[in-house]
Amino acid sequence: ELGVCYYPEQWPREKWPEDAARMVELGLDWVRIGEFSWSAVEPEPGQFDWSFMDEAIDVLGKAGLKVILGTPTAAPPKWLIDRHPDILAVGPDGHVRRFGARRHYCFSSRTYFREAARITRAFVERYGHHPFVRAWQTDNEYGDHDTIYSYSAEAERAFRLWLENRYGTIDALNEAWGTRFWSMRYRHFDEVDLPLHVVEEPSPTHLVDFVRFSSDQVVQFNRQQVEIIRAGSPGRPVTHNFMSHNIDFDHFKLSEDLDVASWDVYPMGGLINGRLPDEEKARLLRTGDPDQVAFNHDLYRAAGRGRVWVMEQQPGPVNWAAHNQAPADGMVRLWTWLAYAHGVDMVAYFRWRQAPFAQEQFHAGLLLPDSTPDQAFHETATVAAERERLPKNRQRERAKVALVMDYESRWASRALPQGRTYQASAICLDWYAALSRHGVDIDIVSQESDLEGYALVICPDLLIPNTGFIERLKASQAKVLFGPRSGSKTPDMHIPDGLPPGPLRDLIDIRVTRVESLPSPESETVLHGNRSFAAGTWRETIETGESVLATFTGAYRPGSPALVGNAGVRYLTALPSREWLDALMRDCLDWAGISWLPDLGDIRLARRGDLTFAFNFGTEAKELPIPANAGILVGESYLEPAGVTIWRHI
Amino acid sequence: ELGVCYYPEQWPREKWPEDAARMVELGLDWVRIGEFSWSAVEPEPGQFDWSFMDEAIDVLGKAGLKVILGTPTAAPPKWLIDRHPDILAVGPDGHVRRFGARRHYCFSSRTYFREAARITRAFVERYGHHPFVRAWQTDNEYGDHDTIYSYSAEAERAFRLWLENRYGTIDALNEAWGTRFWSMRYRHFDEVDLPLHVVEEPSPTHLVDFVRFSSDQVVQFNRQQVEIIRAGSPGRPVTHNFMSHNIDFDHFKLSEDLDVASWDVYPMGGLINGRLPDEEKARLLRTGDPDQVAFNHDLYRAAGRGRVWVMEQQPGPVNWAAHNQAPADGMVRLWTWLAYAHGVDMVAYFRWRQAPFAQEQFHAGLLLPDSTPDQAFHETATVAAERERLPKNRQRERAKVALVMDYESRWASRALPQGRTYQASAICLDWYAALSRHGVDIDIVSQESDLEGYALVICPDLLIPNTGFIERLKASQAKVLFGPRSGSKTPDMHIPDGLPPGPLRDLIDIRVTRVESLPSPESETVLHGNRSFAAGTWRETIETGESVLATFTGAYRPGSPALVGNAGVRYLTALPSREWLDALMRDCLDWAGISWLPDLGDIRLARRGDLTFAFNFGTEAKELPIPANAGILVGESYLEPAGVTIWRHI
Amino acid sequence: ELGVCYYPEQWPREKWPEDAARMVELGLDWVRIGEFSWSAVEPEPGQFDWSFMDEAIDVLGKAGLKVILGTPTAAPPKWLIDRHPDILAVGPDGHVRRFGARRHYCFSSRTYFREAARITRAFVERYGHHPFVRAWQTDNEYGDHDTIYSYSAEAERAFRLWLENRYGTIDALNEAWGTRFWSMRYRHFDEVDLPLHVVEEPSPTHLVDFVRFSSDQVVQFNRQQVEIIRAGSPGRPVTHNFMSHNIDFDHFKLSEDLDVASWDVYPMGGLINGRLPDEEKARLLRTGDPDQVAFNHDLYRAAGRGRVWVMEQQPGPVNWAAHNQAPADGMVRLWTWLAYAHGVDMVAYFRWRQAPFAQEQFHAGLLLPDSTPDQAFHETATVAAERERLPKNRQRERAKVALVMDYESRWASRALPQGRTYQASAICLDWYAALSRHGVDIDIVSQESDLEGYALVICPDLLIPNTGFIERLKASQAKVLFGPRSGSKTPDMHIPDGLPPGPLRDLIDIRVTRVESLPSPESETVLHGNRSFAAGTWRETIETGESVLATFTGAYRPGSPALVGNAGVRYLTALPSREWLDALMRDCLDWAGISWLPDLGDIRLARRGDLTFAFNFGTEAKELPIPANAGILVGESYLEPAGVTIWRHI
Ligand SMILES: [Zn+2]
Ligand SMILES: [Zn+2]
Ligand SMILES: [Zn+2]
Repeated sequence: ELGVCYYPEQWPREKWPEDAARMVELGLDWVRIGEFSWSAVEPEPGQFDWSFMDEAIDVLGKAGLKVILGTPTAAPPKWLIDRHPDILAVGPDGHVRRFGARRHYCFSSRTYFREAARITRAFVERYGHHPFVRAWQTDNEYGDHDTIYSYSAEAERAFRLWLENRYGTIDALNEAWGTRFWSMRYRHFDEVDLPLHVVEEPSPTHLVDFVRFSSDQVVQFNRQQVEIIRAGSPGRPVTHNFMSHNIDFDHFKLSEDLDVASWDVYPMGGLINGRLPDEEKARLLRTGDPDQVAFNHDLYRAAGRGRVWVMEQQPGPVNWAAHNQAPADGMVRLWTWLAYAHGVDMVAYFRWRQAPFAQEQFHAGLLLPDSTPDQAFHETATVAAERERLPKNRQRERAKVALVMDYESRWASRALPQGRTYQASAICLDWYAALSRHGVDIDIVSQESDLEGYALVICPDLLIPNTGFIERLKASQAKVLFGPRSGSKTPDMHIPDGLPPGPLRDLIDIRVTRVESLPSPESETVLHGNRSFAAGTWRETIETGESVLATFTGAYRPGSPALVGNAGVRYLTALPSREWLDALMRDCLDWAGISWLPDLGDIRLARRGDLTFAFNFGTEAKELPIPANAGILVGESYLEPAGVTIWRHI
Repeated sequence: ELGVCYYPEQWPREKWPEDAARMVELGLDWVRIGEFSWSAVEPEPGQFDWSFMDEAIDVLGKAGLKVILGTPTAAPPKWLIDRHPDILAVGPDGHVRRFGARRHYCFSSRTYFREAARITRAFVERYGHHPFVRAWQTDNEYGDHDTIYSYSAEAERAFRLWLENRYGTIDALNEAWGTRFWSMRYRHFDEVDLPLHVVEEPSPTHLVDFVRFSSDQVVQFNRQQVEIIRAGSPGRPVTHNFMSHNIDFDHFKLSEDLDVASWDVYPMGGLINGRLPDEEKARLLRTGDPDQVAFNHDLYRAAGRGRVWVMEQQPGPVNWAAHNQAPADGMVRLWTWLAYAHGVDMVAYFRWRQAPFAQEQFHAGLLLPDSTPDQAFHETATVAAERERLPKNRQRERAKVALVMDYESRWASRALPQGRTYQASAICLDWYAALSRHGVDIDIVSQESDLEGYALVICPDLLIPNTGFIERLKASQAKVLFGPRSGSKTPDMHIPDGLPPGPLRDLIDIRVTRVESLPSPESETVLHGNRSFAAGTWRETIETGESVLATFTGAYRPGSPALVGNAGVRYLTALPSREWLDALMRDCLDWAGISWLPDLGDIRLARRGDLTFAFNFGTEAKELPIPANAGILVGESYLEPAGVTIWRHI
Repeated sequence: ELGVCYYPEQWPREKWPEDAARMVELGLDWVRIGEFSWSAVEPEPGQFDWSFMDEAIDVLGKAGLKVILGTPTAAPPKWLIDRHPDILAVGPDGHVRRFGARRHYCFSSRTYFREAARITRAFVERYGHHPFVRAWQTDNEYGDHDTIYSYSAEAERAFRLWLENRYGTIDALNEAWGTRFWSMRYRHFDEVDLPLHVVEEPSPTHLVDFVRFSSDQVVQFNRQQVEIIRAGSPGRPVTHNFMSHNIDFDHFKLSEDLDVASWDVYPMGGLINGRLPDEEKARLLRTGDPDQVAFNHDLYRAAGRGRVWVMEQQPGPVNWAAHNQAPADGMVRLWTWLAYAHGVDMVAYFRWRQAPFAQEQFHAGLLLPDSTPDQAFHETATVAAERERLPKNRQRERAKVALVMDYESRWASRALPQGRTYQASAICLDWYAALSRHGVDIDIVSQESDLEGYALVICPDLLIPNTGFIERLKASQAKVLFGPRSGSKTPDMHIPDGLPPGPLRDLIDIRVTRVESLPSPESETVLHGNRSFAAGTWRETIETGESVLATFTGAYRPGSPALVGNAGVRYLTALPSREWLDALMRDCLDWAGISWLPDLGDIRLARRGDLTFAFNFGTEAKELPIPANAGILVGESYLEPAGVTIWRHI
């Protein structure tokens, strides 16, 4: 299904009916409204003016649209801030983060917790049973503008309570944080400060606990709203719109309270801010990283336990990246089908009409500011027409490969990167991309996920594996590949007894005796099979009883294992260059009995039920490997740049 | 005329008579003193010691020098700061900017406004009618060390009043700022904060209004001094010494209160901090950007309504840039003649003698610290001798080309750059340089300027054109070239109704439907005439009824117009590479019927009356294109590096 | 002798006896303990628990180890901070630097001065006469984490007193700081602020005085502890462990209170953070800069008046640099012998066992966290065996070359760098390296050192020479080479009367009339002998009556002297490129009658008594220039990478 984000408070009421009619005519099913409407709805403290919202929902609903109503807590009004300055967060520079844009609140503010409940309740009381309101969104983009971490006095108090709750006794905290190290011992929980302006770095456990705490504050904040909505608006799914691979809080944990996970898709900024080398960025300038969007679809599909929406789809150039290039014509259509292929059931474009004022006036919409159609409008019409050609009710099937994503592990390496070149999110996406280049579908899973049916499980950066996960691995038939640093930290951020990979030593007989971070991705060389590859930026020395599958060559410790394994489990002691990663993944796919295609270049494939989707992110047209017994439903076998082809297996 | 900056308070009285005599002997006419003398003149609160100033003026005047007296408000004494700490400004980091150097005051401090009046009045009462005091300078380098913007509590109060004055009602402000966008609505003016520590960015109108306010505070601060001087010192022109192309406040507006605009010329730092690519910086290391100085002469000549001085001319290596190379021998002479050629009537060197103590001890003077002549002393003597060979009273004539510089537009693009690569000041200088390379004289004009007599008007970055300007354009015979983004913002920082270029659509039939910022200056290609050029960093898609004069080629939207126009007006949808810019300017000069010379390389020409000046900024000597009927007054037709040749049309 | 750093408070008591036994068995003589033990020893205010320390000393001592006991003042406990928040320092951003790691104290806190005395006295009273306690270390790494400079209110008060003490009258301060320059005049000492948040830069004399003050605060803080220890623990040498070439305080001055200087050797981070170009860093990735470690040995040997220890020797990869590569196998042995060769009498490894918790869990030890030996354990055993093959009691002899290191001069150029490319510490190390590459031993000396016996004295950056030093130079037979900027500042940070090199004009007839900083190290060329070399980043123009030994060529002032000199003294007006520096040093060695070897590449030599040590920092084996009459004691004449060869002259 298709949808759009709309801001009735930003346009004269006279425009609403025409807008609604055009949305329906375009083929849209859903419209999201309300998430920045607080000061419009409650212009003075306690004085509500529901008229505009009433009318907007009425106009939209009567036109045939299903309304997703956002709680407006991402942007509390100025009068509320002035009454309760304690709502404001404090930044990592120790300064209060002030009003003037949005997300100016501290998740630990008790006042704001109460006020968020009050306004949510007001919304739910008024619209909870409204027939046109068919879903809810809580707040907006938790974590945008680096707003998860607040260093306010209230956050400090809450952190101390959270620590007391986690550790029970201060001795347990002292043990976990290793405070005997530099005479940092605490006598009481109320002696513990936030990790702000510490001389050099605090204990990594202190840092990670602050992240855990902050993540829990977000979960708790969100849960309050979900509970109010559930109680007052039965039958409407609740969602939140996540951002691209934000790791500031645990998205799996928060999603447990949601019915649907959704996220906001901005591939152009994703490319500019992303991991690719400059020459690839130049080639993919107007199509974006071929894997970054798909990765997030797969990630949030996991978070949503299969239910995932795109709440904001980039429709043209936007305003917030360092450079804001236009997508190639065709990309809005491509992204829409890419979402569907990866299991997304609703794609809403952001936004209906470009705003000619305020912060986002350079952010394109389906319409230009003067209400004439922009490029994305036409592409949406194309998608709306094409969807009629597809059979209904195809579901994304379980993939053969699972990639494990773990927020705690990510926080662990962020707290102790041990070298600037270790970037876990980029590593994870590199592994995903290497598989995707070979036409392989991937599921992203958490450590809590059921592993049944997977033939290959890959763990690029699982620093803190948990017992249940290890047990499920043992029980599974899947082959498993671990990246370096796997199992290298206990939940208390210690080196495990018996050295890394700690509990993974139940699965594979190795002992990591040395780790290094290195400046260059090409300082090391390895021999894998009979080919030589570059590696670098991370290297481990191990002792092992397993078979050595690849070895380091070069001056330093030649012959040292680079990849070892047994019948079911392999462990990598380096971060591979792209060439080695491709070879390695092909090797692992063979090992797991999964078929793959030769390097697809900038083409990507994805399957949903009996449908296969092909996408061309490159600059050249390519002939697709369509099976003889397939029937093309959309597009052609010779796939143009920015093009989409869909076929059905018969 | 020639002058020098002198600090009697820094030297023993015994040295003054000899210094004065040597100045006169060198050929100097003017001497500027006093602008950092407050604590010498008023060493204790309210206790004035005029003796040193009396004597200094007496010694200098009697030697034959005309004195420019500076008000000492750029550096209030410590005792004043300690009595009134509210004088200090607050920086963009939220911290008070403290005493210890200079410019440590907030333009919104009421105390300081009063104190500045008090000390100015004291100076004027004592010296207003003094026969040797022949001109006044207010304060010193407004804006140096980023001191225009203060985030103090007083600035916040003043900003609220300013807003109330501008908007009348808070609803008007809400409308202008677009506060309905993110629930940012204000109920009263006293709810509005300064744009400090805002979570992500505030409304661009909020930002630009803060700049407008800050600019007005400077104008008001300066005007108070001018009024006191005018009242108490009749017949003496009042000036202020601006810095190289500072855009933190509106120099045209402030200059309305001045009799003469002046500025401080430091080309070596100008090169190091400037826009040129590294290889050009290496070639021009000791001569500087051939256009940056001339551009500023032309800019401030416009600000001064024809009257412009150089108050500080770099005489050798200085102290404040990232690298402080020496100018090539000859450059001080060259810069002096360059100033004269561009209409400057007085050049004062900074400073008479290098100070052996305090912050600027690495700043050269005409004399070394031990009073022996430095290189610039000798070059000044050369200039003083050469000026005798020139006919008197030549005036700079109106050029055929006008380049429009608009501070509000500059603030608009700074508030909403929409991409790191859009740098309006560099773009503007690039356009100026392309014309200068072809030997064309240029006037810089504001939107308020009379346009009569211009054959070509170019607007590199006129985001906010005003009605009067458009009317004058229509009335003029000039051909007009607009750069991308022209007319793209209303004064409220909105996208205009009917899309950009907004009111310029009266002049040219286009409608900008898409804008993009791009990372590389070479990602796009265009076909202009039958030549292919590189472009990049900014691109617009337009609909137009005009002739298409150049088109984009390449993969994205090939055939899209890159330059369009009608009989009198052209609009560019891209930022050209240097080669295209040269070709484009030649094309526009032909169109406007203005003659031009083939690319001069590092030679520059300028005309004043019937005199033509040639300057060689390059590393190689060149034969000059001197007309047969010209008579050389200074120099030779074969122009050495760092050389000057002057000839007269007969 | 060999030693190790040990933290009994971090390990269960049961492990201590075994640890101690293994230390002795490995050949260790010393063990350092206690420097972070405060909260273990005094867990509650005033309640001491000596049991663990008593037992630890007992166990270690009885096993045969000599104990170095550290005062625990580098890490005061949280309860002390909470009682006296005034202990905390304030950073250069104006924010309090908070508890959570270590070094969280302000050297100007009177409370902390008193508390540091109290805990030191407690340690000394208990262990001052303990037979196993054989040496003391004060605090730990003064200056680590940029902790010398504090901007607290107490520091401000102390600074004013210090100034009053230095200058006597405020007029003297005004004269020294040049406050008449920008109306900065003070009337009383209590008007003077710390140089914090000053608009642009304060007077350089203000800055340097703040550094002098801060340095004196450290010296005073350290002296208090030394006096307590001396009084209560007779016969035990007192040391402090310095960091690699930290210039934040005067290490010569502080060392006057010590019996032995010691320092902490971390060559891998030294390389990553160091001066070498990237391609050299890549080649030397796992061996480090061949000169940085030796330079510091020589520096601190001077500080310790001949007595120098290594208190912490890197044993493997560490945790704190931007990249943390492993040293090549063999390097721990190499560094140990390198230390010995440079006169170090004790090398202690940091640390016995890698900690599996807290901030430094990625910092290797002799043992892995599970107590199995790591690489360094084995290399230590090798060293312990090899030392038996060497004759005893060899002393490092006085070198023929002295390099002058002066902290005041370093502060002077840091306060007034006059160009980003002037980096005095790197320049100094470059000069040292050029000599080392030619096999020459070097002594580092202060201006107070006796110069007898030196044949060549080099002063790379002696901005502020003092009278005694100049007198001793005159009395000496040594040839002298001065770098640019020598003698360019008075102690008040003024340009000297008569221009630079000020008092050095007694030694050499030059007058520096112009200085420049330049962006590129290759913008200038010089002719020296009949070879042409590149130079750049700094250039001076001089007038001289001396012989010109090298001249600038190129477009700017060709023929200007680049090196001048007389029979005994030479002065350089440029910063040479590496090639020129090598040629220049060979030339100066010849001049001074010192023999040298052809460029050794990555081999380094050092002599101690009749022993010669060769070290290979490179990637290729090399045949050594061993004299025929020498006897090899360790290693071979064909020296492998990371190898050591030792021979004895017979
Ligand atoms: Zn955002
Ligand atoms: Zn701050
Ligand atoms: Zn300045």
